[in-house]
Amino acid sequence: MATTQDVRLRVFSLNCWGVRYLSQHCTPRYQMIADLLKEEDFDLILLQEVYSEKDYLFLKRALSHCNPHSHYFKSGVIGSGLALFSKHKLLDVFLYRYSVNGFPYKAFHGDWYAGKAVGMVVVNIGGMIAHVYITHLHAEYSREKDAYLPHRVAQTWELVQFVRLTSAAADLVILGGDLNMHPSDLGIRLLRGYTGLVDCYHATQNFQGCPDGATYIPQNPFTSKGELETFPNGIRIDYILFKGSATLAAKCDSFSTTMGHVPGQPFPYSDHEALSVMLLAQRQQKKQEEEEEEEAMASSELLANLIDTVNEARTEVKVGLHHMEGMRHTAMRMGIMGLALLLLEMLIALVPWLAVSTEQGFPRATFYLLGSLSLVTLVLTGVLYIFYSTQVKALHSTEEQMRLAVLRLQEQVTSRGPHSR
Amino acid sequence: MATTQDVRLRVFSLNCWGVRYLSQHCTPRYQMIADLLKEEDFDLILLQEVYSEKDYLFLKRALSHCNPHSHYFKSGVIGSGLALFSKHKLLDVFLYRYSVNGFPYKAFHGDWYAGKAVGMVVVNIGGMIAHVYITHLHAEYSREKDAYLPHRVAQTWELVQFVRLTSAAADLVILGGDLNMHPSDLGIRLLRGYTGLVDCYHATQNFQGCPDGATYIPQNPFTSKGELETFPNGIRIDYILFKGSATLAAKCDSFSTTMGHVPGQPFPYSDHEALSVMLLAQRQQKKQEEEEEEEAMASSELLANLIDTVNEARTEVKVGLHHMEGMRHTAMRMGIMGLALLLLEMLIALVPWLAVSTEQGFPRATFYLLGSLSLVTLVLTGVLYIFYSTQVKALHSTEEQMRLAVLRLQEQVTSRGPHSR
Repeated sequence: MATTQDVRLRVFSLNCWGVRYLSQHCTPRYQMIADLLKEEDFDLILLQEVYSEKDYLFLKRALSHCNPHSHYFKSGVIGSGLALFSKHKLLDVFLYRYSVNGFPYKAFHGDWYAGKAVGMVVVNIGGMIAHVYITHLHAEYSREKDAYLPHRVAQTWELVQFVRLTSAAADLVILGGDLNMHPSDLGIRLLRGYTGLVDCYHATQNFQGCPDGATYIPQNPFTSKGELETFPNGIRIDYILFKGSATLAAKCDSFSTTMGHVPGQPFPYSDHEALSVMLLAQRQQKKQEEEEEEEAMASSELLANLIDTVNEARTEVKVGLHHMEGMRHTAMRMGIMGLALLLLEMLIALVPWLAVSTEQGFPRATFYLLGSLSLVTLVLTGVLYIFYSTQVKALHSTEEQMRLAVLRLQEQVTSRGPHSR
Repeated sequence: MATTQDVRLRVFSLNCWGVRYLSQHCTPRYQMIADLLKEEDFDLILLQEVYSEKDYLFLKRALSHCNPHSHYFKSGVIGSGLALFSKHKLLDVFLYRYSVNGFPYKAFHGDWYAGKAVGMVVVNIGGMIAHVYITHLHAEYSREKDAYLPHRVAQTWELVQFVRLTSAAADLVILGGDLNMHPSDLGIRLLRGYTGLVDCYHATQNFQGCPDGATYIPQNPFTSKGELETFPNGIRIDYILFKGSATLAAKCDSFSTTMGHVPGQPFPYSDHEALSVMLLAQRQQKKQEEEEEEEAMASSELLANLIDTVNEARTEVKVGLHHMEGMRHTAMRMGIMGLALLLLEMLIALVPWLAVSTEQGFPRATFYLLGSLSLVTLVLTGVLYIFYSTQVKALHSTEEQMRLAVLRLQEQVTSRGPHSR
C-alpha cells in the first residue's frame, strides 16, 4: 500500500433543505449549490435532506468532473436524503437505519418517512483509508418540550456504536451532517466522548463564519424566527468531526461557514449554513506501548465523565421507553374498546330481540356508523400496537447496550490500566 | 495485551424452536437444553428462536455458573429470538436489523414479527479478541416457489457487509445460527466468498453427526415430513463459520451434531439439530507482504467466482425489487379504488337527489357497509403502500451496494495485484 505525507483534504457539509414543493426555491438553490461545489473542488461533499432523487442526479451530472464518485443513500419512504460526492473512488458503501425515529402519524414532522440513518463510505485517498460517515438525526421541534429527545439519544448511541465498530481499519475517520443537537447537548457529549471524534470547530485556530460557529441563524431568510427567539446568534447543529489513528495524525487546518447570504444571489443555499473544513493528515510512527499506557492513565478523568454521560443517556432512553410503553398500552386499550364495540354491534345484528329497527330502538344509521368507526379503530390501533412494540424492543435493546457499556467503562476506571482492547 | 498460545474454544449453536404455545414441549425442552449446556461447558452458546424472555431468563439462571455472561438481542415485535451465553466477558454488544424481512400480514410465517437481525458481541478470550455474530435469516417455506428468496439474499448481503466492516479489529471471527439456506445456495456462497469465513463442516476431519451434516432431519419427530420429502437425509441449514486473522491462525478441530433424539428422553432438544464445534486458535507472526501478494495472486480465480456470485445475488434482489414495486402499485390502485368509493358515498350522502332512502333507491344498509369497507380499504392500503415503499427503498439500497462491490471486485481482477485495501 502506498503511503503519502501531509495529505490535504477539503470536506463540505450542508443540509440542503430539499423537500420538493415545500422548501422554497429548490431548483435555483440546487443550481447555486452545484456552482459552488464545482468552483470549490472539495474532496468530500456530505449533503443532507436531498429528498428527491432527481436533485441528486442533477448534482451527480453537475459534479461529474470534479467529484465523479457518489452515492445516494436510500431509506424509509422518501429518504434517507443523504448524498455523498467524492473526488476519490468509493471502496465500500454501507447504511445503518436507526431503530427509533419518530412516529409515522406525525406526518408534518416527516422524520419517520425520511428513514433517518447513517451512511458509511470507505475511500482510499493516496493510500490512506478514510471511513466517512454522513448522518442526519431526528429534528428538535421544541427545545422546551422535546418529545423526541429519547429518539435522538438512542440514534446517537447507534451512531456511536456503528462508528466505533466499523472504523477499526480506518487511518482517518470523518463524520459530518446535521445532528440537530447543540454543542453541549447530551448526544454531542456522548458522540465525542465515546468515539474520540474531534469537533472541527474546536480543533482549528482558523475559523471564519457565524459567531459561535452557528449553522442555523436568524439572518438566514429561510429559518424559523420563532425557533431562534432565545438564540439571537443562532445555533450550531451541523458538524464535521474527525479523528486520526495510531498510524496517522490528523488536524483541522481551517473551518468556515456561510453566513446567511450569498453575494450576488437573492437567497442563500439553504435554511442551514454550509460547512467547509480543511483537514491535514500525516503518517506517523505507530505509538509505543508506554505512550499508549501513559495516555490511558491520563484519560481516567475523561472515562469518569464518559460514564456519567452514558448514564445520562441511559436515563433519557428509559424515559423514552416508559413513554413508548404508555403509548402501546393506550393503543391496546383503544383496540380493546374498538373490538368490544364491534362485538356488541355483531351481537345486536345477530340476536333477534336486539335487532336494529328503522322505526324504533337502535337506529340503523348510527348502527353502521358505529360499526365503521369501531372497525377503523381496531385496524389502526392494531397497526399502532405493532409499531409501538417494535419501538419498545428497540429502546430496550439500546438501554441494555448502554448498561453493558457503563459496566465495561467502570471496570476500566477501577483497573486504571490501559484499555482492555 | 496478554497473548496465549493454542486457545481451545468450544462453540454451540441451536435453533431452540421456542415459540410459546405453538412449539411442542417448550418447557421440558428448555430444561433439557439447560442440562446439556451445564454439562458440556461451552465457551460460547448461540441460540435462535428464544422468543420468550422468560425462557431466556430461565437459561440465564441455569447457566449462571458456567456461562455467566449473556445477552438477549431484542428486535421486531417478538424477537429477535437471538440469545448468546458466554464463559468470557462481553466487551461490546451491537445489533443490526435486516431492512427487508417478509411481510407483516403473513402472520403465520411470523418472520416479520421476529425482527430478524444479526447480533454482534466482542469477547476477550485470554487476550484474543473474538467478534462473535449470531443470526437467523428469513425461513424458506417452499423450496420450489420461494417467495422470500430476494429477502434472504438481501439479508445475507447485509450480514456480509456487517461482518466485513465490523470485524477489522478481530483476531478471530465466529458466525453461527440458522441461515435457512442449503450449503450450495446463493447466500452461503456469497457469505463464504465475500467474508472469507470457513464453514466448520468443511474445515474439520473429525465430524460426528447426521449424514451430510444435516441439521433438519426427518428422523426428528418435530420436523415437517412434507418439507423433507425430497431430502431423505435431511438438510443442512444451521452453520458455524469462522476465520482467523493476520495475527492468529484458527482451525476447526472437531464438529458434531445431535441426531434427532436424546438418549433417555422422550423427544429431542428442538426441531433443529444442535451444533457443537471445537476451534483451535494460535497466535502467528504477521504475514509478510510478499506472502500476502502471493495469496492475492492465487485468489484471482476465487475473485472471479465471487463476482459471479454477487452478480447472481444482485439479479435476485432485482427480482425482489420488481415484485415489491408491483405490490406497491397494487396497494396504490386498491387505495385509489377505496378513495373513489368513499368519495362517491360522500357525494350520495350530500347531494339531495342522490339521497339514500329506506324505501327505494340506494338501500341504507348497503350504503353504510360499502362506506365501512372503502374506509378500511383506504386505511389498510395506505399503511401497506408506506410499508412497500420502505421495502423498495431498502432493496434499491442493497442493489446499489452490490453494484459498487462488483465494480471494485472487477478492478481487483484486472489489476491482478494485491487488494487495494
